[in-house]
Amino acid sequence: SRALAKDLGLARSTVVTAYDQLVAEGYIEARQGAGMFVCDVSPMLRHEASKVAARPVPPRTSLVLAPGLPDPDVFPLRSWARALARVARNTPEALVEQGDRFGNWALRQQIARYAETWRGVRASADQVLMTSGATEALELALDLLVQEGSVALEDPGYQPAWRYCQRRGWDCLELPVERKGVSAPKHMAEVTILTPSHQFPLGGALPLASRQKFLAAAIARNGWIIEDDFDSEFRYSGQPIPAMAALNHQGRCIYVGTFSKTFSHAVRLGYLILPEGLVDRFRDGLAHRGGGAALTAQQALADFMEEGLYDMHIRRARRTYAERYAAITDCLARWPDHLGYFERHAAGMKIAFHLSPEFKDRKVAEAARQQGFGVRPLSDYSTSQPTNGLLIGFCQSPPDMLPSQTAQLREIILSRAG
Amino acid sequence: SRALAKDLGLARSTVVTAYDQLVAEGYIEARQGAGMFVCDVSPMLRHEASKVAARPVPPRTSLVLAPGLPDPDVFPLRSWARALARVARNTPEALVEQGDRFGNWALRQQIARYAETWRGVRASADQVLMTSGATEALELALDLLVQEGSVALEDPGYQPAWRYCQRRGWDCLELPVERKGVSAPKHMAEVTILTPSHQFPLGGALPLASRQKFLAAAIARNGWIIEDDFDSEFRYSGQPIPAMAALNHQGRCIYVGTFSKTFSHAVRLGYLILPEGLVDRFRDGLAHRGGGAALTAQQALADFMEEGLYDMHIRRARRTYAERYAAITDCLARWPDHLGYFERHAAGMKIAFHLSPEFKDRKVAEAARQQGFGVRPLSDYSTSQPTNGLLIGFCQSPPDMLPSQTAQLREIILSRAG
Repeated sequence: SRALAKDLGLARSTVVTAYDQLVAEGYIEARQGAGMFVCDVSPMLRHEASKVAARPVPPRTSLVLAPGLPDPDVFPLRSWARALARVARNTPEALVEQGDRFGNWALRQQIARYAETWRGVRASADQVLMTSGATEALELALDLLVQEGSVALEDPGYQPAWRYCQRRGWDCLELPVERKGVSAPKHMAEVTILTPSHQFPLGGALPLASRQKFLAAAIARNGWIIEDDFDSEFRYSGQPIPAMAALNHQGRCIYVGTFSKTFSHAVRLGYLILPEGLVDRFRDGLAHRGGGAALTAQQALADFMEEGLYDMHIRRARRTYAERYAAITDCLARWPDHLGYFERHAAGMKIAFHLSPEFKDRKVAEAARQQGFGVRPLSDYSTSQPTNGLLIGFCQSPPDMLPSQTAQLREIILSRAG
Repeated sequence: SRALAKDLGLARSTVVTAYDQLVAEGYIEARQGAGMFVCDVSPMLRHEASKVAARPVPPRTSLVLAPGLPDPDVFPLRSWARALARVARNTPEALVEQGDRFGNWALRQQIARYAETWRGVRASADQVLMTSGATEALELALDLLVQEGSVALEDPGYQPAWRYCQRRGWDCLELPVERKGVSAPKHMAEVTILTPSHQFPLGGALPLASRQKFLAAAIARNGWIIEDDFDSEFRYSGQPIPAMAALNHQGRCIYVGTFSKTFSHAVRLGYLILPEGLVDRFRDGLAHRGGGAALTAQQALADFMEEGLYDMHIRRARRTYAERYAAITDCLARWPDHLGYFERHAAGMKIAFHLSPEFKDRKVAEAARQQGFGVRPLSDYSTSQPTNGLLIGFCQSPPDMLPSQTAQLREIILSRAG
């Protein structure tokens, strides 16, 4: 190294570093007392230079009236980017520090505060567990709660949860959704998944009396209720309906929340709020699992919430969607009666329009798709309850677009009779 | 409502809103032509004010010699934070834009390039699918590939994958890991999961001849190989061994990569590299799933890779771990013979130390844990192959700490004889 340094006119330390690098990368090796030797590296096939593929046209998800999607234009991009940049600048360790499998402490405190203010759920930050979205939250809760293997789910309902339970080979009881929501069955399942604030996909809140019955039955059976509370912030008349977990006096109700609907799908953040009695069980359970929530956005989201920017965003989104809800219901109310009907729940990010039997929802949705519509057939959400209708989104459509969009959809339906 | 408004001195609309809210929450109900009635609701208990919990002591993961964990001090925190801040400032839309379910295009291009350079795998960015880590990548691949329900897994091996397949009720064939790795069984399963570059957890690369046999058998059976390539960058002598997917001439091998080991667990990013023929199948499959990778970090990681900072980080980490590998193997080589043995694979982030039968690995690991060690019993990774030993990490220990740490561990083992 001394000779080489002289030859090259470099500091000896530079040469030593270069050698170290070559050793570390395995190009050369030091042999005791004999110096450096080139390693026996097997010949690798040479590839010709790979072509850089042109960017494919991204499959745009902006199908018209697709249900359940927030409007990206409502997203507070600048202030969110600033919050993230500030974390990167001031507390970069928060981007990667793995303090706790349950997630960033500051964010969990903000969620606990938020859940109390907006959802009436009282819990400390210890009870909040961050996940990579509502689906992971649901699956995690199911995995750690189901022991006997019996679950009950709403029908129609959230099919990924249904499919998950089926794949696990559990006994799946369907709770038919009726006008007043689902009813507690005679034989309570071990775990029941409900969407009490806003039934998915039909809409409508579960009356307080039914909630109490479910909770009482869960207590009597030592069972659990998983409350999937996916978009309850978006109520367009009156206040949000308190969560079922707000009645959770005996610790039988597990709350699932998500930022996908209210904030952005891109952060992939959801959470569980656990009854106190389940915290240790979930902590143990996590030790044997992969998965979990990305940390990158968590501190920024905590700051964003603490500064009131998140509440401001929810209020703004709610105002925007309320206008669109009013506009679309005005349009749909003028559809001819023989098409079908819908109920005004004044909530959520989509409307369930029940079609008359002569219009088959899957055929209609398929025809609509050909013309760029993202409406979904209600049949897709049913297991055994026959449900014929369309799930119609409205959050991405400016109010002045809705008359022509719904008129076009109406014509598609009419053209598909029989 | 008119009377009540007068009584209370309020606008009538306020009273109507209050009534609407009570109806929505299920406290009262309207009966056609008869007015409002109070629902049959059981009395609710009052909470006392919730106490704000003090921040719990985070359960530190810094158990000594815990296997498989990168050293947080090696992480390029400043440059990573800068990359993220730059995205937030310059292209904030990249933080949230949901162009494509497969993930950020720039990152997928970088991964394709990286896989070619470091792992010999040739694929275009179209074939790269971002996931929220290796576990999600594995589960996704299994879900979309397994149809008959037969899988084969290494034993000992990655237990979360084993448990996942068991839960799914698939027929699980164990491939016993022998000195020269696993062998292709007579009857190939539909899907085989392998860790060919660095067997998990025992270490050691699968010889080229065995790889070729597996691939030939997969082709003959129309089956699939999932290659879990979790820390192959960390080879301390010679070049990284090319991935099995590099031999993937017939498109039967699906590559699983992760940033958890090489970069940071906190970003929760893993990926699949699919054979071309599977791209459409996976695109369709994703349409019916929740989950997926957070976008927040993806563009920043793409920039980080493009600027060469990622390669620089890998080289630095490898240099650091190589030193520690040398230090720990020096220490372990001096352990008395009757304790057991280990093999020098000069790779990875942990060493599998095979204990002699008089030392029971679970008992030893438990005793070590009491003293702050994170070593894991090899038995925990076995399904039916009896494997008695310890998985010992070294990446988080500075070389000068290793003599005392390993000496302490040796004493714990010796004290647990019989």
